[in-house]
Amino acid sequence: MPKLRLLQWPFYDDPKKLIYYMSLPPADLTKCRIVVDAMGGDFAPRNEVLGALSAYGESKSFHLILVGDEEKIKTIAKENNLSLEGVEIIHSEEIITMNDSPTTALKTKQKSSLVIGARLVASGGAEAFVSAGNTGAVAAAGTLMIGRLPGVERPTIGTYIPNLTGITTVFDVGAFVDSKPQHLLGYAQLANVYVKEMFGIQNPTIGLLSVGEENEKGNKVTKETFELLKNSNLNFFGNVEGRDILTGKVNIVVCDGFVGNILLKFGESFMKIMKPMLKKTADANFFDKIKIAISRNAIRKTFKVFDPNEYGGIPLLGVKAITIIGHGSSSALGIKNMVLKADEMHRKNLISKLALEMNK
Amino acid sequence: MPKLRLLQWPFYDDPKKLIYYMSLPPADLTKCRIVVDAMGGDFAPRNEVLGALSAYGESKSFHLILVGDEEKIKTIAKENNLSLEGVEIIHSEEIITMNDSPTTALKTKQKSSLVIGARLVASGGAEAFVSAGNTGAVAAAGTLMIGRLPGVERPTIGTYIPNLTGITTVFDVGAFVDSKPQHLLGYAQLANVYVKEMFGIQNPTIGLLSVGEENEKGNKVTKETFELLKNSNLNFFGNVEGRDILTGKVNIVVCDGFVGNILLKFGESFMKIMKPMLKKTADANFFDKIKIAISRNAIRKTFKVFDPNEYGGIPLLGVKAITIIGHGSSSALGIKNMVLKADEMHRKNLISKLALEMNK
Repeated sequence: MPKLRLLQWPFYDDPKKLIYYMSLPPADLTKCRIVVDAMGGDFAPRNEVLGALSAYGESKSFHLILVGDEEKIKTIAKENNLSLEGVEIIHSEEIITMNDSPTTALKTKQKSSLVIGARLVASGGAEAFVSAGNTGAVAAAGTLMIGRLPGVERPTIGTYIPNLTGITTVFDVGAFVDSKPQHLLGYAQLANVYVKEMFGIQNPTIGLLSVGEENEKGNKVTKETFELLKNSNLNFFGNVEGRDILTGKVNIVVCDGFVGNILLKFGESFMKIMKPMLKKTADANFFDKIKIAISRNAIRKTFKVFDPNEYGGIPLLGVKAITIIGHGSSSALGIKNMVLKADEMHRKNLISKLALEMNK
Repeated sequence: MPKLRLLQWPFYDDPKKLIYYMSLPPADLTKCRIVVDAMGGDFAPRNEVLGALSAYGESKSFHLILVGDEEKIKTIAKENNLSLEGVEIIHSEEIITMNDSPTTALKTKQKSSLVIGARLVASGGAEAFVSAGNTGAVAAAGTLMIGRLPGVERPTIGTYIPNLTGITTVFDVGAFVDSKPQHLLGYAQLANVYVKEMFGIQNPTIGLLSVGEENEKGNKVTKETFELLKNSNLNFFGNVEGRDILTGKVNIVVCDGFVGNILLKFGESFMKIMKPMLKKTADANFFDKIKIAISRNAIRKTFKVFDPNEYGGIPLLGVKAITIIGHGSSSALGIKNMVLKADEMHRKNLISKLALEMNK
């Protein structure tokens, strides 16, 4: 990569510098340039730096750009005996917190790691943006700064929900609420390409989340969406219900972001209350305490598939660059998986394939 | 109760007979007359008969009316050495199945246990209706045949979701979709009376299910509902998220039936996949198999709170009589609890209290 980048140019306060900067040839165009928002996440910058450097140390197949407090990044690397060689650091002064209002923060916190990182990607200075920061702000940065692909009215965020035999993906889980039928069709089209490429499923089955299996069941929006999906060239299975997600009836479940977000958070909380619930049983009876203690690891192993850190973040699809959003509580492993996933998406040429699909 | 009822008068094919029948004084007006749809449910009439008779055997504080195939009802009672003394049986010839379209079935299957039972309640011949049959059909029978209380635009079905310290109730879980803000306010008002009376919570906290805690988060409908709830005399907590249900942040969670139904079915499926998931771990490793076998009972005990049979069905609120809807797969214990709950609602004079609240 051009050495100049290492000067941590504060290009965000001088558009001319940015233009000059962008005109420099990247060191290796075949390699994905991945921007990691080092300040996003509940445990930032620690987990972000450790995770990103761990991915970089394992696979030098991409360029790593860390945006965040330079001093802190260097300290974390040093304390953990991790090399920063080949890694670019762009210093940022501000942080968008989990409590910030997404669109307001993008305007007022121009010197935040999230805005600087997204701007770099938006300007073509990198191919992928990875952040475990404020989900709404990352989604807004993707939509408003990086921009939508032609033919995409609304981008979508998906999630992975493990089922008995594999993974069910659910789109949308909160990028947008009050989706119109046309939007839901768009989520299905984007998800279709994603699942095909990333999971190697040739013709993924798509279910429309509703309150009954029968074609006529649903609310106003899903009934109209049903017709759109039926008449599309997608492998539309029909309506699916809440109970079908975990059984893996279809590869892709399509829903409005309001429902998907509530579902996602409800599901996550199930995993969280298991431990205190088992503890309650254990505390009430000595023999149960022993039994639960014996099986603790087996139980943990069983439900490990529900740990979001296993999946490498969730994609924001429909924008012009690879954008991966991580859970606020992402571990270093979670961040590492996100970075590796971004690299995989780049190698699979996902953005071009999504663009092609949306412009058929 | 008047002996005539035991003649299994086919009153449904002769309105005059019904009028005459209705004019007879009930044996004891202080006792609740509970109609049990003996043919509703996946294991009907077996579980329905066993459950209802078990409740009746335990507490003679109500009148029990079983509507269903008389011969089958008598055979089940006989085979299980259960007395039918004092129990009224009304014969029915048809069955509304789980696959029937609710409103169509109410019209075309006039001789079904569900329609006969609901009509008896609607005509004032009984105070409570209990059915584990087709949820949509029971809700439609309650709304269209038994009828709404004055001031109620839309009745609502609620469910119980256990949390770490007690129960969270969620209204609505599928009576209606595309609820307007005014409807959601109505669900909250009905649920408020229900939880106060049945759970003994003086001023239940009410949360509006949304995609963020902040006041301005939500979709079009919840944003408007937020204002209505804020300006009501209810103990409105504010927005709650999907993750707050299982932690018991509020006593009552209000949502549209579309979201509630998906949530309910998703939650139920969580409990269902636990067993096969643990089995998968057990099958993969011999030591894990032993560990899981040892703790099986402790795990089962812990998650027993999620068994819908423990709660005695879910109420349909806003109609003129006590109406309890059971899970299709209700066990005999489930039906028993439903009948006892109906009796409790009657003793607590719930319908009058709901009517009063909705006409303030």
